[in-house]
Amino acid sequence: MAAPAPVSPLAPKKYPTLPILVGVRFASVAAGVRYSGRTDVMMALFDQPAEVAGVFTRSKCPSAPVDWCRVQLPHGKARALVVNSGNANAFTGHKGMEAVEAVAEAVSKATGAAKNEIFMASTGVIGEPLEASRINNALGALVDGQKPDGMMDAARAIMTTDTFPKVATQWVKLGDVDVAINGMAKGAGMIAPDMATMLSYVFTDAPIAAPVLQALLDKGVQKTFNCITVDSDTSTSDTLMLFATGSARDRGAPVISDVNDPLLVPFRTALNKVLLSLAHQVVSDGEGARKFIEINVEGAASRKAAKRIAMSIANSPLVKTACAGEDANWGRVVMAVGKAGEKAERDKLDVYFGDIRVAHAGLRDPDYSEDAASAYMKKPKIVITADLNIGSSKARVWTCDLTKEYVAINGDYRS
Amino acid sequence: MAAPAPVSPLAPKKYPTLPILVGVRFASVAAGVRYSGRTDVMMALFDQPAEVAGVFTRSKCPSAPVDWCRVQLPHGKARALVVNSGNANAFTGHKGMEAVEAVAEAVSKATGAAKNEIFMASTGVIGEPLEASRINNALGALVDGQKPDGMMDAARAIMTTDTFPKVATQWVKLGDVDVAINGMAKGAGMIAPDMATMLSYVFTDAPIAAPVLQALLDKGVQKTFNCITVDSDTSTSDTLMLFATGSARDRGAPVISDVNDPLLVPFRTALNKVLLSLAHQVVSDGEGARKFIEINVEGAASRKAAKRIAMSIANSPLVKTACAGEDANWGRVVMAVGKAGEKAERDKLDVYFGDIRVAHAGLRDPDYSEDAASAYMKKPKIVITADLNIGSSKARVWTCDLTKEYVAINGDYRS
Repeated sequence: MAAPAPVSPLAPKKYPTLPILVGVRFASVAAGVRYSGRTDVMMALFDQPAEVAGVFTRSKCPSAPVDWCRVQLPHGKARALVVNSGNANAFTGHKGMEAVEAVAEAVSKATGAAKNEIFMASTGVIGEPLEASRINNALGALVDGQKPDGMMDAARAIMTTDTFPKVATQWVKLGDVDVAINGMAKGAGMIAPDMATMLSYVFTDAPIAAPVLQALLDKGVQKTFNCITVDSDTSTSDTLMLFATGSARDRGAPVISDVNDPLLVPFRTALNKVLLSLAHQVVSDGEGARKFIEINVEGAASRKAAKRIAMSIANSPLVKTACAGEDANWGRVVMAVGKAGEKAERDKLDVYFGDIRVAHAGLRDPDYSEDAASAYMKKPKIVITADLNIGSSKARVWTCDLTKEYVAINGDYRS
Repeated sequence: MAAPAPVSPLAPKKYPTLPILVGVRFASVAAGVRYSGRTDVMMALFDQPAEVAGVFTRSKCPSAPVDWCRVQLPHGKARALVVNSGNANAFTGHKGMEAVEAVAEAVSKATGAAKNEIFMASTGVIGEPLEASRINNALGALVDGQKPDGMMDAARAIMTTDTFPKVATQWVKLGDVDVAINGMAKGAGMIAPDMATMLSYVFTDAPIAAPVLQALLDKGVQKTFNCITVDSDTSTSDTLMLFATGSARDRGAPVISDVNDPLLVPFRTALNKVLLSLAHQVVSDGEGARKFIEINVEGAASRKAAKRIAMSIANSPLVKTACAGEDANWGRVVMAVGKAGEKAERDKLDVYFGDIRVAHAGLRDPDYSEDAASAYMKKPKIVITADLNIGSSKARVWTCDLTKEYVAINGDYRS
C-alpha cells in the first residue's frame, strides 16, 4: 500500500454529531479483506425488520452483491447490512455469487436474520475473488461489537481511496414528532452514478413503508447522486439504500404508507438535503480533487438537454484541468456545450464564472476583467454557468477538478 | 510560453519523403498570430482549381472558419488553403466571421483566387479575437515563398501542442498510372472527432471529381478519424479536407467521376491508409501520451453497440490511467463495458491484453499470469480486446493513455 493520501482540502471542517436512532446499531472490524491496519467490514443490525428501499447501478456488469440486493429488495424488509471494502466482488462470476451466499448464510446463523432480510455490498478492486471466510470469521466480533453510536466508525470502514468519512444528518417533523435521518457514503473514483453513487446508506427512525421509501429515493437521487460525476466512469457496485426502523412510532410519529401523504413533505425535503450533502461530499473527495465545481445550465430547450449539456461540461477533461490550473478558460466551456449534441446557438450563449460574465452573445464579454476571473478561479468552490438563452429549462450538476493526483492515484491503485 | 514539450516517445522514428504533386505548392511563415520564434501560418496554392471535399466538426458551436468552409464547399473547387495556429477563431461571434472575410478578401487579391475557392482553418485558443491583419501582413511572404516541396514545413506550421508534425503518403495505381496521395494532420488535445479530427489536409494529383472525393472521405473517416479519441472532447474546429489537382491526367491517368468506378478501388484503399496513418499519429501525439492503445470489441450484438462499447473503454479515465501506470487492470475494462449501456452478459465476457486472456466467461482466467500481463503492459503499444461472445459485430478504435503530463499541459495551456 502506498502511504495514505492527505485529507482532501475540500473535506468538511467538522462533522455533525449523528443522533442515535432507536432500532439500529453498528459495528466495524478489521477483517483483513485486503487492507491491513484499518477496519474494512461494517455491519448494521436492526432490532426489528426495517422497511427498506434501494437504487443500484445501471451497469450491465453489476457486482454479485448488487445482484443479490436486487433479488431481496422486493421483500421490503431488512435485518442486517454487511459491507466490506478492499474487494468489489464484481466480475467474479459464480464464485462471486457463491461468496455472497456463504456470507448471507453465516450472517443468518450469527444474527437470526432471514436471508432475504440481509443486504450486502462490496467495494474495492474488481475481478479478484472475495474470500468469504475473511468476513465470516469476523462475524462474531461484528455481532458482539454492535453499538447505537457506531455509525461514524462504520462510515470509516467502507472507505477505499476516500480521504474522509462522509456522513450527513437532519432532524425533521413527521406530524408533531421529531424524527432523524442519518446518512453515510463512500465515493472517490469511478463516480458517474446512473442510479446512485458507489455506496450510500441512509437510516431513519421514521415509520415509513418500503414502497414510500422507494418512491422517495427514486425521486431524491435524480437531483442529488445522479447529478454528480468525478470521472464519468460508472461503477459496477453503485448502491444507495434507505432503511426506516420505524421506532419513532413509539414516540407518537404517524405511520406513513402513502407517498402523497402531506405529512411526508418536510421529510422528503430533509431526506433530499441528506442525499445532497452526501453527494457533495463524494465530489469533494473525488480522487485528487482540490476544487468543488458546480455547473449550472440555464435557458436550455428542455430539461434533458440542460442535464446533458451540464454533464458534458462536468465530464470534460479540458474544463476540469482548466479548473485545476485555476484558469478561467471559458472557451473550453463553449467547446463542451458544443460537443453535447443538444440545441445551442453560439450567438446567444452567455458563460459565467461565479458572477463574472466572461462571454456574452457569441463572443468575449467586452467588460470582462481577466484579473477578476483569475482571482475567482483561486477559490476552492467554482460555479460555472452556461446560459443558452434559447429556452427556460435548467440543470445543476457537481464535479471536481482533474489533477495530477487523480492520475497518480489511478496509475498505481493495485500496486 | 512554457518550454516546448519533449517529443512524444510514440513519434514515428522517421518521416516518409513526400512526393511532389504537380499543381500544388506550399509556403509557411512566422506571422506572430500568437507564438513567437516559429511558423504559424501556412498557405497551399493550386495552379488550377482543384476538386475538393471536406468533413467538419459536428459541434453545435463551430469555429468561424468551419462555417466559412461549409458555405464554400458545395462549389467543389479550391485555389487556396490558409491555416493558422495559435488562435482557433472560435466563439468570436461576428468579429470572427469578419476576420475570416477580411483574410479571404486579402487572399483573393494576393492570389487571384475567387473567394469561394478559398478555404481556411484556425487552431489554438478559443474565444480570443483573431487579428486578421497579422495573417494579411504575411500574405506577400506566403505567395512569394510557394514551393512544391513545402508540405512538411506546412505540417509544422499548423502544430499547437503537437510535439511532432504528422504526414503520410501512398503511391497507388489509377488505371495504369501511378498517382500519389499526401496527407498532413495536427491534433494533440480536444480530440474526439465526430466527423473528422482537428485539422487534416490530404492532397492528390489524381483526376477525381469533387462528389467522388466527398463520398470517399465520408466513408473513409468512419474507420479512421472517427475511431480515435484522446480525451473525449470534440473540438469546435475539426476539419478534414481532400484536394485533387488532377495533374496526373497529363500523365495519362483516367478521369474518375463515378464513385463506383472499379478503377477507384485501389485508390480508396490507399486513401484510407493515409487517413489511418494520420489518425494514428494524432493519437500517438495525444497530450502527454506515452502509450498507443488499440481497443477491439468483438462478438457484439450490433456494429453500433460494438463502437459505443469500444469508445466507452477508450474514453474511460480509469482505463487510461491504468495503462499509464502499466497496470493490467482488466476490472476497469469490465466497468467500461458495463457502463456503455449496450447489451453485455457478464458471464460470457472475455478480456485480453495483447494475446493474454485475463478474464474468461465471467471471472478471472485461471491460467492468466499476472507477470506476463505486467510485462506486456510495459510495451509502448497496448491492444485491449473485449469479446462479448453474444453476437458477431466488431469495432476497433484507438486512444492514448492519460498521464500527469496531460493534466500539466491543460492546466496551464493559456498561461
